Amino acid sequence: MLAKIHITLKKDVLDPQGKVVANSLNTLGFETVQDVRQGKYIEVTIDEEDTDIAKQKLNQMCEKLLANLVIEDYSVEIE
Amino acid sequence: MLAKIHITLKKDVLDPQGKVVANSLNTLGFETVQDVRQGKYIEVTIDEEDTDIAKQKLNQMCEKLLANLVIEDYSVEIE
Repeated sequence: MLAKIHITLKKDVLDPQGKVVANSLNTLGFETVQDVRQGKYIEVTIDEEDTDIAKQKLNQMCEKLLANLVIEDYSVEIE
Repeated sequence: MLAKIHITLKKDVLDPQGKVVANSLNTLGFETVQDVRQGKYIEVTIDEEDTDIAKQKLNQMCEKLLANLVIEDYSVEIE
């Protein structure tokens, strides 16, 4: 099955890279852009029969490797 | 309004970074992970009244700055 993971910076964490992108978009003529936040999107193909077990493992993967929980949040969706 | 943009590598483009993550997950004990593909997730806050105009502008942003259309695909969702 295919899992879709979103990793985003926590709300209170500054995103300087996103700010640069927002400024670049403003300079390119997209003046209505107010804010940009960058995150990661990860697609994991996992060979599990049981959705609950898969979800549990994917949460562990995020906590152990994929996300930095000090500054990032994650969400897991399974298709 | 808030727009959610996903930028992913085209299917035929190799993703060595994703391969490294997949191998790391296998080594950590997640043997059922078969494949990992990494992409970008961008949240854009845009000050537009009209969803169609916003969507049109967001597509232009992806084409001009955010995505590299030679190797990447993008999708735009508006909330």
